[in-house]
Amino acid sequence: MKHVSVGILGFGTVGAGVADCLLKNRGLIRERTGVDVELTGIGDLDTTTDRGVAVPSGMLTSDTPSVIAKSDIVVELIGGTTVSRKFILSALEQGKTVVTANKALLADYGREIFDAAEAGGGTVFYEASVAGGIPIIKSLREGFVGNRINRIFGILNGTCNYIFTRMERENLGFEEVLKDAQRLGYAEANPSLDIDGFDTAHKAVILASLAYGGWHNTNEIYVQGIRDVSLSDIRCADELGYKIKLLAIIKQCADSRIEVRVHPTLIPKHAPLAGISDVFNGVMVNGDFVGDTLFYGRGAGRAATASAVVSDIADAALNLAGGTPARIPAYRKEVECAGIVPMEEVTSRYYLRLTVTDRPGVLAKLAGILSEQGVSVSRLMQNPVSKNTSGEASIVIITHEAKESAVRQAIAAMEAFDAVHGKICLLRIEEL
Amino acid sequence: MKHVSVGILGFGTVGAGVADCLLKNRGLIRERTGVDVELTGIGDLDTTTDRGVAVPSGMLTSDTPSVIAKSDIVVELIGGTTVSRKFILSALEQGKTVVTANKALLADYGREIFDAAEAGGGTVFYEASVAGGIPIIKSLREGFVGNRINRIFGILNGTCNYIFTRMERENLGFEEVLKDAQRLGYAEANPSLDIDGFDTAHKAVILASLAYGGWHNTNEIYVQGIRDVSLSDIRCADELGYKIKLLAIIKQCADSRIEVRVHPTLIPKHAPLAGISDVFNGVMVNGDFVGDTLFYGRGAGRAATASAVVSDIADAALNLAGGTPARIPAYRKEVECAGIVPMEEVTSRYYLRLTVTDRPGVLAKLAGILSEQGVSVSRLMQNPVSKNTSGEASIVIITHEAKESAVRQAIAAMEAFDAVHGKICLLRIEEL
Repeated sequence: MKHVSVGILGFGTVGAGVADCLLKNRGLIRERTGVDVELTGIGDLDTTTDRGVAVPSGMLTSDTPSVIAKSDIVVELIGGTTVSRKFILSALEQGKTVVTANKALLADYGREIFDAAEAGGGTVFYEASVAGGIPIIKSLREGFVGNRINRIFGILNGTCNYIFTRMERENLGFEEVLKDAQRLGYAEANPSLDIDGFDTAHKAVILASLAYGGWHNTNEIYVQGIRDVSLSDIRCADELGYKIKLLAIIKQCADSRIEVRVHPTLIPKHAPLAGISDVFNGVMVNGDFVGDTLFYGRGAGRAATASAVVSDIADAALNLAGGTPARIPAYRKEVECAGIVPMEEVTSRYYLRLTVTDRPGVLAKLAGILSEQGVSVSRLMQNPVSKNTSGEASIVIITHEAKESAVRQAIAAMEAFDAVHGKICLLRIEEL
Repeated sequence: MKHVSVGILGFGTVGAGVADCLLKNRGLIRERTGVDVELTGIGDLDTTTDRGVAVPSGMLTSDTPSVIAKSDIVVELIGGTTVSRKFILSALEQGKTVVTANKALLADYGREIFDAAEAGGGTVFYEASVAGGIPIIKSLREGFVGNRINRIFGILNGTCNYIFTRMERENLGFEEVLKDAQRLGYAEANPSLDIDGFDTAHKAVILASLAYGGWHNTNEIYVQGIRDVSLSDIRCADELGYKIKLLAIIKQCADSRIEVRVHPTLIPKHAPLAGISDVFNGVMVNGDFVGDTLFYGRGAGRAATASAVVSDIADAALNLAGGTPARIPAYRKEVECAGIVPMEEVTSRYYLRLTVTDRPGVLAKLAGILSEQGVSVSRLMQNPVSKNTSGEASIVIITHEAKESAVRQAIAAMEAFDAVHGKICLLRIEEL
């Protein structure tokens, strides 16, 4: 029986979940893989707080470098991009196999880390970095290896999905639900990473890389968060047959470039992806042979994330036991696409919500502005949700397929029109 | 660059799909795996029919043994359990790695085939045998390797799901939809394998083996097909908040035995699994760490099945290139469970539909029979769908949790009661 040692760096929520899983299901993993995967060390500055997992005495230490040195597989669960980066690079220099759940680190320093893995002869696994317990990285990389990926749509942030679900079900405004989500622990005290879309963007970069090779930077992609989506947008969307979800969208274009973007999106309410509610994540993948597929599960949380981390550990253990540590390289340098389409060039159908002075001629003027930019109106609803008595009217416009740059110019012109109050809410529509 | 040769046995629908995928996406697979996976031979008795795939001249031959001899990876897509078995055993004796989509063969001869693989130092891959393009076998075996599997619910037969979907949407009877499905090519001329549940049973055995080790025989499990599900059952279920799906159910029991059964099942209509319609397949897996997950995709068809076969080929190629042909053994001999619970011992909630003479005292008598067997009634509906003018009444009874043996005895007693006409329709309910 081959034996492989595992060291965990960071004994927080996920670290405790991984320790729990490795200790509880060690026999099971041994039976299933033929390798004895043993947790041998845990490094964390805090060696006293009770994490609810009984680890053998002496296993938990604040001397993290010693944990790295004596482990075959180093599991980084510290988070952040400073200490974690330092320890990962050190482990890779020592030729270790690294497992991480750190999407922010990969999104910002992926290339450096993968190069260090290659130089050291080790590799990096990161199943838990996207969609928690859902084996989406393994499925994209191995399950769909024979497919050219046409498109990926992902609900990848549980906090945002939870907020939309509660707004819709309970007729509550964004701020109210956010406060309650923070109280319940579903949203961070500083929720920006989640609700401004950056967390989803980190994951989009990782999925795009798996699908099309190379490694893109988060700042190359368009990111719009969910702060500006109001309850009335959710109600209007519903009336039009849509639900609103924060989506990561990754698409192969006809000209061999790809689209990678993150924004609140109207999707048909009966599509399987629209049925994914609460804190759950869902990913829809379309490949040229497999067609449409969908994956659904918990995108975060101690146990679900631990499940993904342990699957990486088991893969790494099989590879080490077989003498093929880098059986699957951490990433593919060959790029299958000719770059990311700038957002201005993207075409989409659009949802625009405006507040205007309720007076004759306003609609004609707005229609004229859109027409000047070549943006064709598919549907228009005035005061669609409730009659407004303040002399203002609320207008929702659904466009036909149009170019983002044209829509943005139309919006700038409409916002400059004195009958339009405040900023126009711009959302995009995907028929999936 | 490592090179691996692939031979396909059987140039039918799926064989042509696999050849198409290997020829079309060879460069992609090479980039992604670092191995050049080359299709080098196709064996089929019919070497003349056009399959819509342009294969290099000389590749297609009726001399199948020569294809086996010169291939590193042998892909069996002949179907059936005679010739396919002979060729697979021959390939394994020669130490080849075998990829197959043949669930019937695995269900009936799995143990013999896996033993032959072990003896020859090769292995057997079979991702395409369950749920077509959905990477469910990889996910269960690798993605959830750290989880004790609590339960699996699978919609694994596209034909049955298509029939239920059309009955429900178009208010049509079973026979009518079946005939139309046959006309459209969604059901075989002899549809028994699908609609009597055997195809699903083959797949259930494979999933049970992946989840709990060992290899069970199809005849150890309870199998009920969909012939007796009428449109009125679908309407009643709907009224009660359920949809009817043919499910493979695999569950860990408290006493460490497992349940493995196949039958039409009422499931809550808003559950994600209930939303899987038409020919699509869906599998819900609950693991002790990952919690609930769901996979959705095409369960059959040339391209989706080819996607799964090619993922096996790529795994096999990586293993051969790395010198670890049996990196993941074909199956686990260690059994994690203490056998399959006999159906009589299973407990469930039940749906019973009876046609009775519409006269006083009948309900009291039926209630008495159920009560004698300790079966408690949760809900009772009389003529729930439409008023019957023939002097007969239709009764639907929903029970609380009860033991199968008690329910069967109650049914036998009710069927012996002269006011009960014909056979009682018995379905089971899962709240998922």
